[in-house]
Amino acid sequence: MVTTTATSLFFPAGFSFPTSSKTSMMLGGGSDKLGASGIKSKPTSSGGLQVKVNVQDNPKINGTMVTLKNEDEDETPLPPLRNFINQLPDMLIDPFVQEELIFSQNFSIRSYEIGPDQTASIETLMNLLQETALNHVRNIGLLNDGFGSTPEMSRRNLIWVVTRMQVLVDRYPSWGDVVLVDSWVSASGKNGMRRDWLVRDSKTGETLTRATSIWVMMNKQTRKLSKMPEEVRREIEPQFIDCAPILNEDSRKLPKLNDNTLDYVRTGLSPGWNDLDANQHVNNVKYVGWILESAPVSIWESHELSGMTLEYKRECGRHSMLQSLTAVSGDITGDLLDAFRVECQHLLRLESGSMVMRGRTEWKPNMPITWGAWV
Amino acid sequence: MVTTTATSLFFPAGFSFPTSSKTSMMLGGGSDKLGASGIKSKPTSSGGLQVKVNVQDNPKINGTMVTLKNEDEDETPLPPLRNFINQLPDMLIDPFVQEELIFSQNFSIRSYEIGPDQTASIETLMNLLQETALNHVRNIGLLNDGFGSTPEMSRRNLIWVVTRMQVLVDRYPSWGDVVLVDSWVSASGKNGMRRDWLVRDSKTGETLTRATSIWVMMNKQTRKLSKMPEEVRREIEPQFIDCAPILNEDSRKLPKLNDNTLDYVRTGLSPGWNDLDANQHVNNVKYVGWILESAPVSIWESHELSGMTLEYKRECGRHSMLQSLTAVSGDITGDLLDAFRVECQHLLRLESGSMVMRGRTEWKPNMPITWGAWV
Repeated sequence: MVTTTATSLFFPAGFSFPTSSKTSMMLGGGSDKLGASGIKSKPTSSGGLQVKVNVQDNPKINGTMVTLKNEDEDETPLPPLRNFINQLPDMLIDPFVQEELIFSQNFSIRSYEIGPDQTASIETLMNLLQETALNHVRNIGLLNDGFGSTPEMSRRNLIWVVTRMQVLVDRYPSWGDVVLVDSWVSASGKNGMRRDWLVRDSKTGETLTRATSIWVMMNKQTRKLSKMPEEVRREIEPQFIDCAPILNEDSRKLPKLNDNTLDYVRTGLSPGWNDLDANQHVNNVKYVGWILESAPVSIWESHELSGMTLEYKRECGRHSMLQSLTAVSGDITGDLLDAFRVECQHLLRLESGSMVMRGRTEWKPNMPITWGAWV
Repeated sequence: MVTTTATSLFFPAGFSFPTSSKTSMMLGGGSDKLGASGIKSKPTSSGGLQVKVNVQDNPKINGTMVTLKNEDEDETPLPPLRNFINQLPDMLIDPFVQEELIFSQNFSIRSYEIGPDQTASIETLMNLLQETALNHVRNIGLLNDGFGSTPEMSRRNLIWVVTRMQVLVDRYPSWGDVVLVDSWVSASGKNGMRRDWLVRDSKTGETLTRATSIWVMMNKQTRKLSKMPEEVRREIEPQFIDCAPILNEDSRKLPKLNDNTLDYVRTGLSPGWNDLDANQHVNNVKYVGWILESAPVSIWESHELSGMTLEYKRECGRHSMLQSLTAVSGDITGDLLDAFRVECQHLLRLESGSMVMRGRTEWKPNMPITWGAWV
C-alpha cells in the first residue's frame, strides 16, 4: 500500500510516495489492517452490474462528469461502452446514467512508447490509465489542491492511497493506433474506492486492456489509514457507479519472495531525477518497471505479459535503494514449455529488506502454438 | 556517431544501435573521418535563410510533405512559422515553398511526462522531436522498409546515422499544454543531412525549444560511412529546405572526460528490456537519460537544463554495460553561484572504456535571480 499526494483522488497507479522511512513503517502496518477491514473489491450484493447513482447530495461535484473531447482525441465516434457491457452476462444497467459518469479519452500511441516487439509496453498502458484518471479528476474539478481530494478530505488532511491493482492485457496496440480509455469509479466496501479502466481500439472497439484498482484514505500528516468520513462519502458518492469490477478479483495469495525462493534478482535500483513526479516522489510506473527488470530476458523474448496483480505495501522516495526479485514457475528455457503460459512472482524491497511492492505476472507465448507439431 | 536502423531517415535523436562490438569500433573510426569530410552544419553561402527547393527530380517523393493534422492535434489554428522566422535577422525566405516542406504536429503534454519541477522533462521533449521526425518520414512514404531509407538507399544498404545534436530549451511546457513541433530537413555539406525542429506553445506561438541535428549515411552491412550517391541525392533533395540551421553551431570542442577529470560517475548502467526499440537496440532517449544520471541532484534542484550539445560516437546494445561521467564547471553548492548558469561535461562510455557519447549541458537557475539581495 502506498500513499498518493499530488494527484490522488481517482488516481489509478499514479500514486506518489513521501520519503520518510517512519511513514513507510506505518504504511506497512496500516496495510495489514486494511485486509481485515473489508475494503477489498467485491461484487455488489446483487452480483450484477446494477447502476444506482446518488446525485442529490453535493451539487458542487454533481453532474460534471461527461465524456470529454480533448487534445488527444481524434474525430472518430466513440464505440459505445454499452455494447461491451452488454456482452457481459447477468447484467442490469441503465446506460444513460452509467455513461455520464464514465470519463473517456483517446490516445494516439507514439513511436517512443513501443518496445522491441513493436507494440506498446505495459508501462505505456499504465501511463495512459494514469493520464485518463487524472483528467477525470480534473474534469470533476478536484485537482485544485494538487492532491485530488474533495473539500471535506482536504479539511481533514486526507488523501487517497492505492492498495491493489490488477491489469489484464488482451492485445497491445502498435505505433499510430488510437486507443480509447474509459474510466469510472465505484464504492469498494464501506471505506474504499475502486477505479476501473477499459482500453479499446478506437476504430474497431476491440477490447485491448482491462484494469481495476482499490483505493483507501490516509491522513497526510499522521500517515495512518482512515475510515471514510460521512461528509466525504456524501461528496464522492454521486461519482460512483454501482457495478461489479471489470475484472474478477485475483484472490490467490501473493507469496512473499525471499533469498531462498527467488530465481532472479536485480540490485542497486534507485530512482533518477526524472523518475520523480511533481511532488518529488517516485512515479508509479517506475515501480512496475523495476519489478519487471528482474524478469529474465528469455521470458521477454518468448512471451508477452498478459496479466498483472500488484499489491502496494510501502512507499519509497528519491534516496531509496531497492532490489527487485523474481521467481518463475515452469522452465522457460525448454522448447516445449516456451509455448505455454508462464507465471512469475515478484518482490520489490528496500535494501533494508522492507517490502515495497509484491506482485504476480502472467505471460502468454508471443507466437501462437502450432498444434500440428504435437501430432 | 551512431547508427540508426529501423527509423533512420530524418530520424532525429531517435537512432538505434546494433550490438556488435566490431561495428562499434568501425563506427568510432568512421566518426573521426567524418570531421574532416565537411559534413558539419554551416550556414548557406548567402549567410541567410534562403529557400530554394528542388521539386522536379523524383515524383515519388515530391510534393507529399504538407502540414499534417493528426490524432494528437487540437483544433487551434497553427501559429505561422513565418512569423517566427521573420523575427530572425537578415533573412530572405519564400514562405510558401518553405511551409509546404515543413512537417508540423501538435502534442498534448501528459501527466506522466512531467518531472519534479512540474514541467516536461528533457527526455519528453526529445521524444516529441523523435515522434515528429518519424511521422514526417512516414508522411513522405519512406518508412516502408522499416529503415526510413529512400529506394536508392535501400538498394545500396544505406541507412542514416546521427552524429551530432544540439538542443536549446527556452521554456519547458507543463501538463496539459499543447505544443506544436515543426520539423524540416536540409543539406549538410555534400554528404550529410540536417534536421531542425522548432517547438512552440500551440496557443501563444511562444518558442519553447529549438534543436538541430546532423546525419550521414552508413552501409548497414559493412558499417562504414558512405558518401551520398548521386541517385540518392536526387531522391531526397526535393525534401531539403535551403536555409541556415535554427541554432548556430556550438563549435567549442567537447573535451573527453576521464577518471582524473570527472566529478561524478554512475556505473553499472545497462538497458532494460523496455529501453529497447522495435529493432532491439537501445532507444536514443535512454542515452540522454544515462548521461544526465551522473549529474548531481543538487544541480537538478537549483537549476534547469537549458541547452545540450551531444556527439554520438559509438553504438551500444542490450548487453552493454555503461558508465556515465560528469564534470561540473563552477561550485553548484555555493549559495551565490547557485544563482548563475552552470555548465557540465558528460561522457557515456562502455565499461571497456570505449566512448559511446560525449556532450555538454548548460543549466540556468530555476528561480529568477533576486537582484535586491545583492544591494
